[in-house]
Amino acid sequence: MTGDPESSRPRLTKIVLDVLKTHVPSLVEFSSELSRVEGVSRVEAELIEVDAETDSIRLVIEGDNISYEELEKTIKKLGAAVHSIDGVVVQKTGKR
Amino acid sequence: MTGDPESSRPRLTKIVLDVLKTHVPSLVEFSSELSRVEGVSRVEAELIEVDAETDSIRLVIEGDNISYEELEKTIKKLGAAVHSIDGVVVQKTGKR
Amino acid sequence: MTGDPESSRPRLTKIVLDVLKTHVPSLVEFSSELSRVEGVSRVEAELIEVDAETDSIRLVIEGDNISYEELEKTIKKLGAAVHSIDGVVVQKTGKR
Amino acid sequence: MTGDPESSRPRLTKIVLDVLKTHVPSLVEFSSELSRVEGVSRVEAELIEVDAETDSIRLVIEGDNISYEELEKTIKKLGAAVHSIDGVVVQKTGKR
Amino acid sequence: MTGDPESSRPRLTKIVLDVLKTHVPSLVEFSSELSRVEGVSRVEAELIEVDAETDSIRLVIEGDNISYEELEKTIKKLGAAVHSIDGVVVQKTGKR
Amino acid sequence: MTGDPESSRPRLTKIVLDVLKTHVPSLVEFSSELSRVEGVSRVEAELIEVDAETDSIRLVIEGDNISYEELEKTIKKLGAAVHSIDGVVVQKTGKR
Amino acid sequence: MTGDPESSRPRLTKIVLDVLKTHVPSLVEFSSELSRVEGVSRVEAELIEVDAETDSIRLVIEGDNISYEELEKTIKKLGAAVHSIDGVVVQKTGKR
Repeated sequence: MTGDPESSRPRLTKIVLDVLKTHVPSLVEFSSELSRVEGVSRVEAELIEVDAETDSIRLVIEGDNISYEELEKTIKKLGAAVHSIDGVVVQKTGKR
Repeated sequence: MTGDPESSRPRLTKIVLDVLKTHVPSLVEFSSELSRVEGVSRVEAELIEVDAETDSIRLVIEGDNISYEELEKTIKKLGAAVHSIDGVVVQKTGKR
Repeated sequence: MTGDPESSRPRLTKIVLDVLKTHVPSLVEFSSELSRVEGVSRVEAELIEVDAETDSIRLVIEGDNISYEELEKTIKKLGAAVHSIDGVVVQKTGKR
Repeated sequence: MTGDPESSRPRLTKIVLDVLKTHVPSLVEFSSELSRVEGVSRVEAELIEVDAETDSIRLVIEGDNISYEELEKTIKKLGAAVHSIDGVVVQKTGKR
Repeated sequence: MTGDPESSRPRLTKIVLDVLKTHVPSLVEFSSELSRVEGVSRVEAELIEVDAETDSIRLVIEGDNISYEELEKTIKKLGAAVHSIDGVVVQKTGKR
Repeated sequence: MTGDPESSRPRLTKIVLDVLKTHVPSLVEFSSELSRVEGVSRVEAELIEVDAETDSIRLVIEGDNISYEELEKTIKKLGAAVHSIDGVVVQKTGKR
Repeated sequence: MTGDPESSRPRLTKIVLDVLKTHVPSLVEFSSELSRVEGVSRVEAELIEVDAETDSIRLVIEGDNISYEELEKTIKKLGAAVHSIDGVVVQKTGKR
């Protein structure tokens, strides 16, 4: 809307991830850690499938300007892996 | 939104649980007890399946800052068990 | 929201019941009687199945602070029986 | 909400009826006559099945305080019959 | 709401018709003609089935006080026929 | 609402068309041309099926007072044909 | 609404594309680049199918006045191809 340079840079405001995690840490701890990532304001996690050693989960992460690099790093640190990036919303204007 | 340290700590605001309980206490008493847990403001319980000795229920628990540890403890005290954590919402900002 | 002791007591605000009733009293009279129970503000009844002697009905009862004990007593007095409690909402804060 | 005796009497605010009517009067005339009943403000009629002599219709009748007795009397006077009462909403407070 | 005699007469505010029409006039012309009928403010027409000589259409006609007699007359004048009246809304109060 | 002669003339405010077009012009160019037609304010086009020579598309065209004659002429000029008029909304009052 | 020449030129406000891209760049980078295109304010990307060498994605791109030419050029520059244009919204008035 405005020519404000800040608002015209692309910002990642939503990302949907298919993630494979070990049973520990629990979904509560796992989601809490992800919510600490820069630019993240909300993490919604849903359990999709339970296997012997792992859980398939679907993450919907929202924020004003999510740092995907930091997000992926945190996921790995928690012993999990991004299986696929299933959705992305990038915005240039201030309204979400 | 603000740099307020309080609002930037992750808060568990919603949790969906698949729980196995005995027929007694009733769904009304069971839900009332859970709603007393710190940080919980609303408990929605739905009966999923009735077996000879047990009921499978689905709990959707909402609050500003739910203590999962206390929640799990209360569930056990009521003779029930968390079968799985099916969903979680964690938030860092004040808006819910 | 506030530390008001009144608002922090669990209140049953919604209950979903699967009830077996005789054909008489009619669904209109039956629902009217239940709506008189303390703390009830709205009774929605739906006819699910009609048998030779009985009707299966689904009740969705809402209120600010429903007394389940009185509700169950009234249901029995009307010649009906609670087959199962299928859903419950308990709240601790004032907002519904 | 208030202790107003008026607002705390149960009022029938919605009723869903499965009705069998003859082809004449038409659905338009039939619905108009029912809307004249005391306490009725809206009649929605849907044709469900057409047979040689009769129409099965589904009526959703809404109002502030519907008199079921008068409603049933009017239905009979129009040569039709209530096959079943499929749903009912009774309310005690002023809000609908 | 008020004792205004005008507002307490039943008014046909919606009617759903299953109509069989010839291919000519087109759906645009057919709907325009119907919208000219007294008390009609909106005509929605949907093509349901196309046969060699005829079109089956579904009409949803809305207005403040639709004259069904005039509506049916106009439909016949356009070479079409009401196959069935599938739905009706009659209202007594001013709010729609 | 008013006796304003302008507002009581039937206006075509929505039309749904099943159209067969050649691959060129593209859906973007095709829709832009249609949006230039008198009385049109919005054109939504959806690709339904792709064949060797042609595309089946579904058009939802909205406006305050769409000229169907001009719309059809423009469609033909673009090398396409109206396969069927699947829906129409005609209104007499100002509110849409 | 007004005779303002600016507002009466057709503007592409939404476009839905079926795109085939290589695995690199990631969906995050790909969407960010597209959001930089003139007139684009929001890019939503969804992963539809993963093959050995390519990803099928569905893009929903929104903006006030999207330049399709620049959009297509950017998609090609990123090593991807528009498989089909599945939907388009063109508007002439200011309201979206």
